Order: sequence, then C-alpha cells, then structure tokens
Amino acid sequence: MASDYSATHITVDNINPKVLKCEYAVRGEIVSIAQTLQQRLKDNPGSHPFDEVLSDILSFLDLLCTHSSDYVQILYCNIGNPQALAQQPITFFREVLALCDHPSILDKSETQGLFSADAIERAFQILEQIPGRATGAYSHSQGIKGLRDTIASGMGARDGFPADPNDLFLTDGASPAVHMMMQLLIRSENDGILCPIPQYPLYSASIALHGGTLVPYYLDEQTGWGLEISELEHQLKTAKSKGIDVRALVVINPGNPTGQVLGEANQREIVEFCRKEGLVLLADEVYQENVYVPDKKFHSFKKVSRSMGYGETDITLVSFQSVSKGFYGECGKRGGYMEITGFSPEVREQIYKLASVNLCSNISGQILASLIMSPPKVGDESYESFSAEKEAILSSLARRAKTLEDALNSLEGVTCNRAEGAMYLFPCINLPDKAIKAAEAAKTAPDAFYAKHLLNATGIVVVPGSGFRQVPGTWHFRCTILPQEEKIPAIVSRLTEFHKKFMDEFRG
Amino acid sequence: MASDYSATHITVDNINPKVLKCEYAVRGEIVSIAQTLQQRLKDNPGSHPFDEVLSDILSFLDLLCTHSSDYVQILYCNIGNPQALAQQPITFFREVLALCDHPSILDKSETQGLFSADAIERAFQILEQIPGRATGAYSHSQGIKGLRDTIASGMGARDGFPADPNDLFLTDGASPAVHMMMQLLIRSENDGILCPIPQYPLYSASIALHGGTLVPYYLDEQTGWGLEISELEHQLKTAKSKGIDVRALVVINPGNPTGQVLGEANQREIVEFCRKEGLVLLADEVYQENVYVPDKKFHSFKKVSRSMGYGETDITLVSFQSVSKGFYGECGKRGGYMEITGFSPEVREQIYKLASVNLCSNISGQILASLIMSPPKVGDESYESFSAEKEAILSSLARRAKTLEDALNSLEGVTCNRAEGAMYLFPCINLPDKAIKAAEAAKTAPDAFYAKHLLNATGIVVVPGSGFRQVPGTWHFRCTILPQEEKIPAIVSRLTEFHKKFMDEFRG
Repeated sequence: MASDYSATHITVDNINPKVLKCEYAVRGEIVSIAQTLQQRLKDNPGSHPFDEVLSDILSFLDLLCTHSSDYVQILYCNIGNPQALAQQPITFFREVLALCDHPSILDKSETQGLFSADAIERAFQILEQIPGRATGAYSHSQGIKGLRDTIASGMGARDGFPADPNDLFLTDGASPAVHMMMQLLIRSENDGILCPIPQYPLYSASIALHGGTLVPYYLDEQTGWGLEISELEHQLKTAKSKGIDVRALVVINPGNPTGQVLGEANQREIVEFCRKEGLVLLADEVYQENVYVPDKKFHSFKKVSRSMGYGETDITLVSFQSVSKGFYGECGKRGGYMEITGFSPEVREQIYKLASVNLCSNISGQILASLIMSPPKVGDESYESFSAEKEAILSSLARRAKTLEDALNSLEGVTCNRAEGAMYLFPCINLPDKAIKAAEAAKTAPDAFYAKHLLNATGIVVVPGSGFRQVPGTWHFRCTILPQEEKIPAIVSRLTEFHKKFMDEFRG
Repeated sequence: MASDYSATHITVDNINPKVLKCEYAVRGEIVSIAQTLQQRLKDNPGSHPFDEVLSDILSFLDLLCTHSSDYVQILYCNIGNPQALAQQPITFFREVLALCDHPSILDKSETQGLFSADAIERAFQILEQIPGRATGAYSHSQGIKGLRDTIASGMGARDGFPADPNDLFLTDGASPAVHMMMQLLIRSENDGILCPIPQYPLYSASIALHGGTLVPYYLDEQTGWGLEISELEHQLKTAKSKGIDVRALVVINPGNPTGQVLGEANQREIVEFCRKEGLVLLADEVYQENVYVPDKKFHSFKKVSRSMGYGETDITLVSFQSVSKGFYGECGKRGGYMEITGFSPEVREQIYKLASVNLCSNISGQILASLIMSPPKVGDESYESFSAEKEAILSSLARRAKTLEDALNSLEGVTCNRAEGAMYLFPCINLPDKAIKAAEAAKTAPDAFYAKHLLNATGIVVVPGSGFRQVPGTWHFRCTILPQEEKIPAIVSRLTEFHKKFMDEFRG
C-alpha cells in the first residue's frame, strides 16, 4: 500500500525522527478495540452484554469522530471532557460568550428577555476592553490587555499576592503554553526536564517533540502519591551524573492521573529545591478548582513562593491554567494561560517572540479565561444560579470520586488512593502470575491485558497505567470520575463482577 | 538589570538557539517608534502634523495592547486584521456562532425576533453534527466530522473535484498547520524548504524554529511577480550542490506581500515541477477569496493537479486555508484548516499524532470554517443581506487597491505592481544614493530608513521590504489596502507630500 506512494518521497523513514519518537501513549490498541465494539454494537444492538462503551481515553476523540445520533449511546468517560458526558456548560459564561459573538443584539429589547442583566452588562464591559470592540481582530500576542487585567486581579484575590497582567500569556488551552516552555528550554537531548511518574502524557510527548530528555521522579503511592524531596535530589543527581543538564521541574497539582493534592509544607520544600538548584518550576495547576476533600486545599506555587519571601528574581516560576477543567469543563473553547515570573527581560522578549509567531489565541477562549477568574459576585443577578450550577457539579464529582474509590478498594488485589482532586483514580492492581504470564504470551503489558479483558467483557474503557509510566513491576489503570452520577452504580457492579471472574480465571 | 536574574539560571545564552535565530521580521524598531509617537499623541494631541498612526505591521499587536478608547484614534492598517480597521463581521456568521455558544435560547420565541430564520436553522444543523451537541467538548483531533463533511463538499463545489473530509485537519488559524508540516518535514539544517522571496515571515520563522534551511526563490517583479520555473530549477540545483535535501516548495497564491495571482498555466508548471522533483507542494491559499481583477481567477492547486490527471499517489499536496482572510476577516476566531493529499497511511498517522497532542482546535473556529465554505444560498432568508455585505467589502477593497496602486506609481522613483489579490501592495522605491549613504551612516537598511522618515513625518507605518526579503540592492515596503475607504485620500496626500520632500532632500 505504502509503496503506491513512492512517488511522493515522504516516508516514515525520512520524516522528523522526533515526531516518530513522540508517543501519545493513551492512544492505541484499546481504542481500536473500543471502536470495533462500538461498530458491532451499532450493527447488531444487543450483541454484547452491555450497551455502552465507558471510555476513559484521551483519544475518545477517535470515537467521537465516528459517533452519530443513530448510534447505540456511547458514554464518554474521558476525564478531560466533562461536556462530552452531558455536563451542561455554566449558563452565565455562555450568555456572555454569545453576546460578545453577536454584539449587535445587545441593545435589542428581546435580549433582556433572553439573557441575564449581569451577562449583558459583562458583555458591554468586555467589549469596552477590546480595541474597536473587535472580537474578530487579532489581539496582542499575550492576549487582550483588559482581559489580562481581569485575570491578574482574580489571581491576586486567590493568592493574596498581586499578579502582573504583563506576566500573563493567553493561549489556546494550556497545551500550547507547555510546548512554548519546552521549546524555550530544550536545546538538545542533553537537556532534561524532571517529570512526575505517573505523568500526564502531554509532558513526555512535548519533551520528545522538542528533542529533550524526560528525567523521571517517582511519586510515592504508599503515602498517597507523596512527592519526596529526597527522590527529586536522587534523580537530579543521577541525571547530572549522566551529563544531563536538568533545566526544569514539572509538578502537576492537583495530580493527573494520581488525583493527589500537595500539602503546603510539601510545596515549600519543592520551591526551596527549585530555588537551590536553579530549576524552572513548571506548575501545572489546571485542576485548581477540583479539590474534593475537606482536609486539602489548593495553593498556587506563586502564593507559596511569595509567602516564603521569594520574589521575581529568586525563583523562575511558570503556572499553567486552562478553561477545560475546573467545574466548567469548557474543553472545546481552547482557553488557557500561563503566568511567567522570574525571567530576565531578554528572555521574556524571546518568549514574547514565540507567542507572536502564532499571532494570538482565540478571543472567545480569552474571554472565557477572564470569566473563570471573575465569576458573578454576590448581588449579581446570576450569582445564585451560577453558584448552584457550580456547587451541583463539584459536590457530585466528590460523591462519584468516593463511590468509585470505595468500589475499587473492595476488589481483590486492588488498592486505590483517594481522589483528593483533579478528575481521576489511579488504582494499583496486584495481578496474579498466571495473568502476567498470559500477558507476556500475548505480547502485551499486564495492565493492558487486564484493560482489554475489561473492555471486552463490560464495555468499560480505562487507560492502562503503562500509558502514564509507573514503578516497574507495578500495574495500574486510570479511571475517570466523570460518568453521570446515576450511571456509577452500573459501572461499579459491572467492574466488580468482571474483576471477580478475571481473578478466578487467573488466580491459578 | 538582567544580572538581577542570575539566580534563575535561564539566560538568552542558554535557551534554545533556534528560538533566538527565529525572526519575526515585521516587528522591531518601526514598532517602537510608532508606540512612542502614539504615546506622545495621547499625551499632547496636536503635537504632530497628524492625529492617526496608519500602521501596516504584523505587530500592530503591540499597539493594540496600549490602545484604549480615550486615546487619539489609531487606524490599524495591518493587512491581516480587517476588523481592527472597523470592518464589520458578516452578520450571518456571527448569528450562528452566538446561537451555537448558547443553544438554550434556540427554542425561545424572542430568538426569532433577534436572529434570522436560516441562522437558527443552521445552528440546529451544526449542533446535530456535534456529538451530544457539546460545543464545550474536545472534538476529534482533525475537527468535528460533520463540519469536515461540510467543508469538503464546499471544496468539491469550488474545484469540481471531490475533497475527502478525512484529508482535512482543522486548526486554530492556518499558522499551526504550517508549523505542523515544518515539524514533520524538517529533520536538521540539511533539510531545505523552497520559499518565495519576498515571503510572508511565518515561513522563515517556522523554518528557523524547526531548525531547517530556507531555500529562496525570487519572484520576478518585472513580470508582475511572476514565478519562473527556471528560477525554481536553478535554486533547487544550487541548494542540492550545497548538500541541502530540499523537501517542499511553498507557494503563496494570491501572494503575500506581493498581491499577485498565479495564472493556471503557471500553476500547472509548478505542479509538474513538484511532481518531477518529488517535492511536497505547500500551497498557502488563505487569500483565495481576495481577487480584485477581472482577468485573474483563483484556482486551487488541488484542482489544477487533478485537472492534469494527477491523483493521490502522484503528488503530495497540502493546502492551507483560514477564516482570518477572505471578505470575512475573522482573525480573532482562529479558525482554519489544511487539506493533505498524497501522504502514505503511515505518514498520515504521524500527522494525526501531531494533531492529537494538542487535542483539537477551538470549536467556534471549526464552526466558522464550515460556514465560510457553506454560506447562505439563494432562497435563504439571509442570502441577500449576506451577498450585499460580501460584495460591499470586496468591491471596496478592489477600489482601494487601485487608488493606492495609482498613487504609488505617480511617485518619483516608485514602481508598483497591481494588487491582483490578497490585501497588499509591495512598491519598489528607487532611493537616491544620498539616502542610501545616510541610511548606512544611520546603520539601518535604506528601506527602513525611508519607512522611519515616513512614520515620523506622517504617522503612516509601513513594513520595510527587508522584513520580507527582496532582491539584494532593491528596496520596497509593504502597504496594506485595508484602511477605511474614506481615509484613503488623506493617506495618499500625506504620502505624496512626504515622498516629494524626501526625494528633494536626498536627491543630492
């Protein structure tokens, strides 16, 4: 087949090898199986003991593309995509976006009947901040100044320390910001980036694409995925001994896929470590509004470092935020930003140049980023409905997390840490030798072997732990807490029934 | 100052040298001068013989950031940004976007009073194409399948040859698509990309960022910026003799900054050349709706190659399209796409992987991309108003192009080719030796020297030709045709008066 294309001269053997090396690990065989099942279900409903594929895969995207309304219903459990699981958007946010898209209706009388008064007022305010009220014009490459002012004051209110709008770069989701920093910091494979294991695959993919080296540090599952400084020191030392110039430390808080929330004392140690070692602290804080346990609270690394008395010239800190997570889950809007502090003016200029090559991020995403950092306040017409929508989503997520966590811990050989935050559970499965041998015979990782059996038997799709990396010899899978609450019991009973059968079969 | 940051360890000397090497040439000194002037005008209105800065700079973005309504009015003439110059968005497009952002108003009676019937109907159709009607969910990494179907049929109607929705990758504007192809094709500085000179700086910037080599080919100004195959052959041979592996040919049609529109016979020669040499043809076709002369017509390279009988396996062709240009000029929405044909399934998989690492492009931009390829049709309620809006914009642009072209050609020592398409004029200035010597003394390029004098005297900002590269020893500037039509006479008289004085001063 490929040979037909010989005339084109472009083959996998002569494209950029970094592209080949890059793995977006949560894609792959599981997805193909899920798609086949989905097709089969469409062709002969009832051909399987289940009528839904419960999928926790980043590449649910592949499923979406073949989805159409006449399909047997598919339940997308991908953690990053709440609105694909029927979560409704926050009304106030969408009102403002619609009005900014079509400002000519702002003055019409019918508009008062359709939109809340504060949404109309907010749209007027935002349009005033946009030169010429032109939502269809390129903006400043860092994002519209007035919107950055709003975001900065929201961050200041959150942290108790001021944020500078000139430190903010608005981006199409958080991913482009992560790529921009990797592009800035990585010169060659001798440059290393410390990343947590398990990690979110965006980091390994971006480091590979930019030709750097991922320097792993392991989170301690026994202590609820604790981040030990001794482990950071050990891995840094090991990397240096191999001639790796370690440039930055990635911390994901709340954690993906682990769901842990760092304690403030731990964060102080991390800041101290980065300052001492002169590492850029890349703080993935996109789940900052997703904390489910009363004994944990989100603290931004900016707040922690400033509360330690460290300022602009003491530590280099980058924080990533996104409109895709939180309680709003506006993944499709591709809004996000990074706050950069501790870079010299000369380096900032280079970062600005990188941003300017792509002109600017999409204006709707920029507006939404300002809205999540300045939601309706007490007294605003939308305040009560907004708060109700927010509370309903977050409290339901907390209940789902607890239910799934308990269910997983009740399974033979499965231990699961709390989902303190984010949107995931990452249980450890102690697989029988017979299952591991069977997996080896099938030339697949034991956790992928388990996940495939789970999918075939129940239609539940989870991501094998190997997609996120894990301590060698341990096996996990990532499971989202996002399915609609009324569907959780069915998921639990299917999973429980499957797991028992699987263990009986392979206990040997 | 920078030394204060020594603790941070990140300096311009130890970041990725490719970032340093990357130049976004239309930024720079001219912008700083414009900003200073703008500030001075704000502080003391009337301190200059002009009250507007007429700016044709990609980095008008810098100006935007300091703009606020209490400023003396600034007229943004940046070619890429019509809505920053008071061009109004197309009503039908914005109606549909607003309804898709806030679907819950679709069924309300007030909505019929505010939106056209076909916009409401179109919003329903589009929401039907989106799994779960979730405009806030990540989509397939190539874009929502239903929207790609719409775009593909629009392309099929345009070309008379079918387009496959699976060949389309929807992106946040065209720039990410260009970067994706450079990332795929460039392995090292030994890989070359043939680019027109003058060129749009996105290409030189992207090639530098990915570590490749720009192989220049010169457009022939004497023949209206003609693209000579002999020149392509000559430059390809020269590059090969230097050990450069030339992988692709970039063609911008209609041209930026030159404004030329290629003839179909010329396009056939280009296709034949790429096929013979096994080069990927990267066709920048973002100005496909911007053709102003009756004797020229846009033909996509896909149509041309298919009409020559060349199919999927004969030539590798990538076409870039954007919602930022055309008559709609929706730059801020960041919508666009590329059509890829002639890649083997294995290579396509790698391109898909690159797209999937960033999850998907923004959904509003995806919807807009489908709308520009399927506008209202005869019989639709919006058809007449839509056609009137479109015709008004395009006919006005044609008049502005002609007026400016004539004015420029009337200046001593200035020759300017027709703006057959796109949004620019790129006049050649025959500068007196005295001016060239003065420029050398001032350590600046002669065309930058001219542009600075023009800015200081009139407030008109143009981009020196050196920002786009040009035949050594020739001097140009890029001038947009986008200022509001009623302001063109003032621009012409200011420019004419300045030029006369400048020539008198330096004629020597």
